[in-house]
Amino acid sequence: MNVLIVYAHPEPKSMNAALFQTAIQALTAAGHQVKTSNLYGMQFNPVSDRYNFTSVHNAAFFKQQLEETHATAVNGFAPHIDTEQEKVEWCDLMIWQFPLWWFSLPGILKGWVDRVFAMGRTYRHGHIYETGVFRGKKALLSLTTGGPESNYVKGGFNGDLSGILRPIHRGILEFTGFTVLAPQVVYGPARLSDEERANELAVWTTRLQGIFEEAPFTVGAY
Amino acid sequence: MNVLIVYAHPEPKSMNAALFQTAIQALTAAGHQVKTSNLYGMQFNPVSDRYNFTSVHNAAFFKQQLEETHATAVNGFAPHIDTEQEKVEWCDLMIWQFPLWWFSLPGILKGWVDRVFAMGRTYRHGHIYETGVFRGKKALLSLTTGGPESNYVKGGFNGDLSGILRPIHRGILEFTGFTVLAPQVVYGPARLSDEERANELAVWTTRLQGIFEEAPFTVGAY
Repeated sequence: MNVLIVYAHPEPKSMNAALFQTAIQALTAAGHQVKTSNLYGMQFNPVSDRYNFTSVHNAAFFKQQLEETHATAVNGFAPHIDTEQEKVEWCDLMIWQFPLWWFSLPGILKGWVDRVFAMGRTYRHGHIYETGVFRGKKALLSLTTGGPESNYVKGGFNGDLSGILRPIHRGILEFTGFTVLAPQVVYGPARLSDEERANELAVWTTRLQGIFEEAPFTVGAY
Repeated sequence: MNVLIVYAHPEPKSMNAALFQTAIQALTAAGHQVKTSNLYGMQFNPVSDRYNFTSVHNAAFFKQQLEETHATAVNGFAPHIDTEQEKVEWCDLMIWQFPLWWFSLPGILKGWVDRVFAMGRTYRHGHIYETGVFRGKKALLSLTTGGPESNYVKGGFNGDLSGILRPIHRGILEFTGFTVLAPQVVYGPARLSDEERANELAVWTTRLQGIFEEAPFTVGAY
């Protein structure tokens, strides 16, 4: 199967980097094709604007969704955006590897979504949620947190992680038709011992070996 | 009172731009001091990395929170980040004016949070939520949506807007001690008539005239 891993962390020696490299190795060893988008490594610019496009629908007023719909019709996406869109279209499974910053995606990954998930090409009237463009594809958030697991449960310090991730699971992934798999979470890697970190990587490897047999995660609508 | 407006939209003739300009005028006319951060206008770079800092805590391993804590101690924030932090520290009310993209903030605004809301300076152990660094300050999200209001209610096409905004309200604003005011929402401005858009601006002006007398919005923990 085809797997795209989108990776967003500034430190090559971080736990996120180790999880990213582990996933590439485990999936390749299991016979899958892997493509990657290392957003910090690519120096990806996450500011969505006219330079998403080579085409122009309306030079006097920039309405992003109309420019996206036009670019879809005339092949008018900037080459580096088109390349990212082709990777998403190519994959059977998309994994995002990132640290949870402010209950959400790092800005570089959020802006990748803003620019790549274009109206027309990745969603359009009548092709959203259950009839989404990417139906049949799976998606999985692999993330690290700052605090321990007990901070991310209902009534805990920060609250239920499923609720925190719902805008991403529901508003981006299910919105465009992806079937969501359970998130892979390493809680507070900075506080783990080397042995505990190695164990987390082993758990991730084992999970990825059978990833295409997993049942979907229940996100739940708002 | 002192008001900071952070504005994130690429089109100067957009409804977001009109709401931004309207707020500046209404608040100034009411006798308040207003500072702004026009993120697209400033060409703000939303990628959080070492260049947030002039100081270096650990040159061999970039752990952002430790660099932030160190920079707080030694005045080591990059000048343009320090300027943004000073604006937040200066204000009594912070307004964010943005379009809701993918159930969340545009990447340029999310990255502004990633870079500006630094550990040590804007939150630290024992100074989070009810004891947050910014307690006594108020914050308000002013946003536009793509779809009509009926899409953003419980059981609607996208679901309850309060739930969609909770990671921002709870995980950024209340986390750092802000008292949250009710969001100001213009639903589907692209589908409104000129008269309806003018009415939305008038409603916003009227609200801002009494903004410091408003009771808090109930966000609710997860």
